[in-house]
Amino acid sequence: MKNESFNSITMRYMKEDYPDLYDSIVSLNNSVYNGNSLSYKTQKLVAIALTSSTSDDRAIEKQMISGIKEFDLTKDEIMDVLKVVLLISGKPAFTKAVGILYDVLNK
Amino acid sequence: MKNESFNSITMRYMKEDYPDLYDSIVSLNNSVYNGNSLSYKTQKLVAIALTSSTSDDRAIEKQMISGIKEFDLTKDEIMDVLKVVLLISGKPAFTKAVGILYDVLNK
Amino acid sequence: MKNESFNSITMRYMKEDYPDLYDSIVSLNNSVYNGNSLSYKTQKLVAIALTSSTSDDRAIEKQMISGIKEFDLTKDEIMDVLKVVLLISGKPAFTKAVGILYDVLNK
Amino acid sequence: MKNESFNSITMRYMKEDYPDLYDSIVSLNNSVYNGNSLSYKTQKLVAIALTSSTSDDRAIEKQMISGIKEFDLTKDEIMDVLKVVLLISGKPAFTKAVGILYDVLNK
Amino acid sequence: MKNESFNSITMRYMKEDYPDLYDSIVSLNNSVYNGNSLSYKTQKLVAIALTSSTSDDRAIEKQMISGIKEFDLTKDEIMDVLKVVLLISGKPAFTKAVGILYDVLNK
Amino acid sequence: MKNESFNSITMRYMKEDYPDLYDSIVSLNNSVYNGNSLSYKTQKLVAIALTSSTSDDRAIEKQMISGIKEFDLTKDEIMDVLKVVLLISGKPAFTKAVGILYDVLNK
Repeated sequence: MKNESFNSITMRYMKEDYPDLYDSIVSLNNSVYNGNSLSYKTQKLVAIALTSSTSDDRAIEKQMISGIKEFDLTKDEIMDVLKVVLLISGKPAFTKAVGILYDVLNK
Repeated sequence: MKNESFNSITMRYMKEDYPDLYDSIVSLNNSVYNGNSLSYKTQKLVAIALTSSTSDDRAIEKQMISGIKEFDLTKDEIMDVLKVVLLISGKPAFTKAVGILYDVLNK
Repeated sequence: MKNESFNSITMRYMKEDYPDLYDSIVSLNNSVYNGNSLSYKTQKLVAIALTSSTSDDRAIEKQMISGIKEFDLTKDEIMDVLKVVLLISGKPAFTKAVGILYDVLNK
Repeated sequence: MKNESFNSITMRYMKEDYPDLYDSIVSLNNSVYNGNSLSYKTQKLVAIALTSSTSDDRAIEKQMISGIKEFDLTKDEIMDVLKVVLLISGKPAFTKAVGILYDVLNK
Repeated sequence: MKNESFNSITMRYMKEDYPDLYDSIVSLNNSVYNGNSLSYKTQKLVAIALTSSTSDDRAIEKQMISGIKEFDLTKDEIMDVLKVVLLISGKPAFTKAVGILYDVLNK
Repeated sequence: MKNESFNSITMRYMKEDYPDLYDSIVSLNNSVYNGNSLSYKTQKLVAIALTSSTSDDRAIEKQMISGIKEFDLTKDEIMDVLKVVLLISGKPAFTKAVGILYDVLNK
């Protein structure tokens, strides 16, 4: 999350056009993902859950891809997260996220 | 989560009045929190994040209390979760959840 | 819904202070709840579902009370609606709404 | 809803890979849509409303298609539901769902 | 907002098929955007914020395009709005809206 | 917004217990509300809209009070914002926020 989310085109535009804001986001990002008590992997799983529960397809896909690349998250681990999404955020959010997960894995 | 969330008055009413539905919820709950790949503790942290990001005060408080009782979650661990809530769900959701966390800890 | 939601203090303030806006809301409300194809009772059940899925306690309570008063909605009918809320919007939304339903019925 | 939502690719993957979870979802689904007091058709209308208010395009489309196939829901009946979505969930949710409805009907 | 949002295909369908409802929406729209105390431009900025915080891509894009056409909103002005979205609604909502803004500007 | 939101008990706790995170939030806050192109007052109005559309009572109240104190926002100006909330986020969000506005003004 630290690096990948700052390589998006959007973030590169921002870095160029709004460097102060960009720096603040990077600084906040670093304060958030600092592995104080929980591992960064656990925080990543939390991020996948939150994104699945509220966001658009691309954001969910990006979180899953980076989680798999950076932490070797397995299908089962992500499913353990999405099951909580099912219970707390409902079936459409769950089904959408599971569909994206299988797409990512089958690519 | 397994047990505590079924001890609420609401759930006891449901058990009496809608036993079939109650059983289905319990069954789903058990399939969700089965610690397949992630520990139940990690799933609990995910549940705290999702609840903080979308739900009402009592649900957030209940999740935090049960997480502290069942898994000895520390303030720092819960804060590591809420920091991700800040980044992904925004400052009001974060501030509300942090406020509830301090209330729970100061009781 | 037609009448009750315009008797709230808020709506009475609005009628006095912003009569044009008030009239537009009443007009929209009447176009919405006109029982074209579905009965107004069915629309009321839909309104209870939507309110339970996203809103605050008072709005949910108000919808339920007016549904019970105006259409003699039974506990079972409202539960049949809330069960769909459980599946689509998740357990915290469901639990909250069920709790409010029992509170309303036990008053 | 009972059948159609379990024929999606996602659900078929889940049946194979996570049979326990799959069974729990089917069981919950059956407890939800059991036509205790309200007809299953009314519950379907509620499901269309909730999905329109919070979910992505495909979920909304799926709910509408299955409602039209299984219950011969008419355009007017679905519009009576979406009108409540307009009032309670706002104009963008309404406009999106109306657009999908016309697409489904014009196919 | 006044005019553009009623030129969409969806709204033209509605005008034909549901003229009463259509008229109520137009009337509400006019009561909302009447520039009583705030300029219509400021209300447009508020509309961009709210749409970015909760809606789908097309709605966000439409709001931005009409804001640029009708009020000559600049990139910096819209960014000043989206920055508040970042703080209050979180990073995924912000990133999505910024991406759409750059797409609109680069067309 | 700059100052008031950091005087809450929650923020004071955070400053003591999580100074790094606190500093990042302050820094982001300053980058957000920097009055580049829009006035800070306009950004405040946007913040009131976003908070009204998604958050809890206390957050809405806090935003309104600080907007009235810092910028002499009038009832009519805030109503012009809430009218957009009505159209885009629906009637329950609007009614709740209007209720809070009148409470704040009548205190």
